[in-house]
Amino acid sequence: MQNRKEMMENRREIAVNKLKGLGAQIIEDVNKNTVPAVKVPSRGTSNLVYDDAKRYYVLGDRYGKRSLGNVKQVKKIAQMVTMANFCKELIRTNRTATIRELYYVSEGWDVDFGDQQESNIVGEDLEVTLGMTREDLGLMPEEDGASVYGNLILKDDDVEINASKSGKSGYTISPTIDDVEFIDHDVQRVIAVETMGMFHRMVQEKAYKKFDTLIVGLKGQAARATRRFLKRVNEELNLPVYVCNDGDPWGFHIAMVIISGSAKLAHVNHDLATPDAKFLGVTASDIINYDLPTDPLKDIDVLRLKELAKDPRYNNEFWQTEIKKMLKIGKKAEQQSFSKYGLEYVVETYFPEKLDVM
Amino acid sequence: MQNRKEMMENRREIAVNKLKGLGAQIIEDVNKNTVPAVKVPSRGTSNLVYDDAKRYYVLGDRYGKRSLGNVKQVKKIAQMVTMANFCKELIRTNRTATIRELYYVSEGWDVDFGDQQESNIVGEDLEVTLGMTREDLGLMPEEDGASVYGNLILKDDDVEINASKSGKSGYTISPTIDDVEFIDHDVQRVIAVETMGMFHRMVQEKAYKKFDTLIVGLKGQAARATRRFLKRVNEELNLPVYVCNDGDPWGFHIAMVIISGSAKLAHVNHDLATPDAKFLGVTASDIINYDLPTDPLKDIDVLRLKELAKDPRYNNEFWQTEIKKMLKIGKKAEQQSFSKYGLEYVVETYFPEKLDVM
Repeated sequence: MQNRKEMMENRREIAVNKLKGLGAQIIEDVNKNTVPAVKVPSRGTSNLVYDDAKRYYVLGDRYGKRSLGNVKQVKKIAQMVTMANFCKELIRTNRTATIRELYYVSEGWDVDFGDQQESNIVGEDLEVTLGMTREDLGLMPEEDGASVYGNLILKDDDVEINASKSGKSGYTISPTIDDVEFIDHDVQRVIAVETMGMFHRMVQEKAYKKFDTLIVGLKGQAARATRRFLKRVNEELNLPVYVCNDGDPWGFHIAMVIISGSAKLAHVNHDLATPDAKFLGVTASDIINYDLPTDPLKDIDVLRLKELAKDPRYNNEFWQTEIKKMLKIGKKAEQQSFSKYGLEYVVETYFPEKLDVM
Repeated sequence: MQNRKEMMENRREIAVNKLKGLGAQIIEDVNKNTVPAVKVPSRGTSNLVYDDAKRYYVLGDRYGKRSLGNVKQVKKIAQMVTMANFCKELIRTNRTATIRELYYVSEGWDVDFGDQQESNIVGEDLEVTLGMTREDLGLMPEEDGASVYGNLILKDDDVEINASKSGKSGYTISPTIDDVEFIDHDVQRVIAVETMGMFHRMVQEKAYKKFDTLIVGLKGQAARATRRFLKRVNEELNLPVYVCNDGDPWGFHIAMVIISGSAKLAHVNHDLATPDAKFLGVTASDIINYDLPTDPLKDIDVLRLKELAKDPRYNNEFWQTEIKKMLKIGKKAEQQSFSKYGLEYVVETYFPEKLDVM
């Protein structure tokens, strides 16, 4: 395996070169007396393609052209180039900035943004034009990633971290997780759960020992850093990844975004999706088989389930059956509802039975 | 200093004895042929008293009486006793449960709850009747606490954790923070910031070194575990605590709840409030003095500021002046808006100037 540090330095060099290239091309156009223009791949719905082989959304071939010959586009190009320059400095000084900070930084520019949405869009333009993630460009999401507990040793700069010795809440995946090296591990699998309540339950019931597993507490919708972490443990360490969420359309989709990426981020799904990750539960069948405490589906749940049924990511027998079954019983259930049978039940009975079937 | 482990074991013993006492008294009443009743201190607004000496809200002397002679109250008492019994078992087996799990556990009881709000209320009844926090009873909030970065060494069970060697996102305060022992530290103060964006900025700019400080990333409204942590570092380690939040009524109040506790939790404020913690900013004066990028106050911000002005916790010159000033300029600003002057400005210029004044 290539040394992570070298690999990341390499990636940073590529990013810097691509950022420079953006400016260089404009200068070249000027020198050749042609009107400078930038090709920006389209992120519109009509350019979203679900790739059956890759098992996630990718962008199609369409693109828009930003030309300095078009008065309306001059400012956008200027912003893009200024942002590219800022990112180049970030990478060179080994820093990162949140997209919120970037927005405020731009207040000092001549071509500042009207609001943060504008600056976010130009950021995405930059990602898609250069074919790099914004993390590669030094732009980080605000939020931290999941908590990880279990026998995994990581190295962040010069610090070695043991995820089974970082306290009861485990090791927190930082936005700069790409820089972190996996040094060693002694686990067979990864089980990700939706809530920190379930995470703490699993730590207390020693699920890490019982299943030789890493426990990952997603904290709801998985952050980008969490998705990159799960992808890396799956692909670099060859560990199977299981996702266990609430038994409702929102829990389903939290898992699905981990597995098959999101439509909105089609241009970076190759860096975020873990197509081999498996949904462990809670399914509609579990609700019936385990006679779980439930809540009735709300109108918005029903609507969402019907949307999911039509989504290409759910186009297989397992999901179609489970979605239909949930609509039929009209009920949903939370992960923590297994506590009806005692706090230890989920670890002593439910997980072993489900893992066995898989 | 008393050994933390002994202290917590002692606290657990007290909790078990109080829980037993609740049942024992009912049995005693029955044996004496009197109708059993439980006195529950009132948590209503009319029983909330702001204690000027303590600098937080406490409960007054009023209480309600739950009598087994009253048909309407029989179920509530049964639920309270069943919950007390469950908590006794939690403590004895050295476990904790989330209040969500407790609600599902109760589905297996004869006296189950209609919904979680009901079970939460009985949980609070138990807290206030026994004069203990729900953490003492083994009932934990769902959410994790803040992130901590800097030279602090903690001990959780047999594991020693160095908060400057736990990764870029630091050590995460777990709901069971009371069990954690402070082993050693090499800092002069604690600076808590509202967002993880600012936390990462401070880590990257090495604020821990520059100010000999722990950096605490609150993640918005501080969790109970975070408030207990801040109180402990302030009182056990004698470290001054500074809170730096967004310059708006919500940021003000996140700081104030850390400093002076909340009205809703008056019965446990003695375990949560850190009256000596100081609000560092962002103030309305900062917005003017540093010419920060701002947003106009919304109606709801104005309303909230006027509420705060009447709140006894804000009844001093500093707050009254700052609230009036913010209403006058009609503007608010985020922490991260200092980035207008460059990413390092907040650490290089703002914090030193503010700490200097204090």
